[in-house]
Amino acid sequence: MDLEQPCPKYKQAISILGKRWTGLIIRALLGGSCHFSSITSYVQGLSDRLLSQRLKELEAEGIVERHIYPETPVRVEYVLTPKGKELQEIVEAIQRWADRWTLDLEEGEEPEGGRARRGP
Amino acid sequence: MDLEQPCPKYKQAISILGKRWTGLIIRALLGGSCHFSSITSYVQGLSDRLLSQRLKELEAEGIVERHIYPETPVRVEYVLTPKGKELQEIVEAIQRWADRWTLDLEEGEEPEGGRARRGP
Repeated sequence: MDLEQPCPKYKQAISILGKRWTGLIIRALLGGSCHFSSITSYVQGLSDRLLSQRLKELEAEGIVERHIYPETPVRVEYVLTPKGKELQEIVEAIQRWADRWTLDLEEGEEPEGGRARRGP
Repeated sequence: MDLEQPCPKYKQAISILGKRWTGLIIRALLGGSCHFSSITSYVQGLSDRLLSQRLKELEAEGIVERHIYPETPVRVEYVLTPKGKELQEIVEAIQRWADRWTLDLEEGEEPEGGRARRGP
């Protein structure tokens, strides 16, 4: 990897993955196919409107697929495509870094700048 | 990694790393210590004001350090801390995914939703 040159593909990838909530939505979907409501309960604070928008963006990028099951009532689930499943490596790398370098936060506590200085 | 449970540390990490420009600034700094102006020339489109803000945020998180050399004129360089250098694993994982799944873009061309469907 040539770190000294900017890379348009890298730039494109982070413009997709860096959007607010996207990293958490992908993490939820890596656990398996999800109903809309199971994503909103996983990602606390995410509104239905924004989740709907993010899922459409991820569908347009070929990262998420929407599966419709013609039952009564109709069942809709969101699943990662192969392109989406391969994001697991990135999610795991972020988790390893976070485990090593960020502070323990109590459930519901919001992170603040300047608090995450602990490390080995 | 338990993907079925949200993790506050992961959430905290992506709230830092997912901010616009941060992924590119970190990539620039992984290439070695940088002057302010060498970051702005690497990250095209990033204003001085926003770079200054992002660098302050990264300093507050213990990811970047500001080194001041008392020369004439004074020289200021930004370097990654050990916490910052360990982001290389994440940057490399994003680059591998991007190389595999995003389209070639001409220099200066902006990515668009729905175009990045190519893959193996």
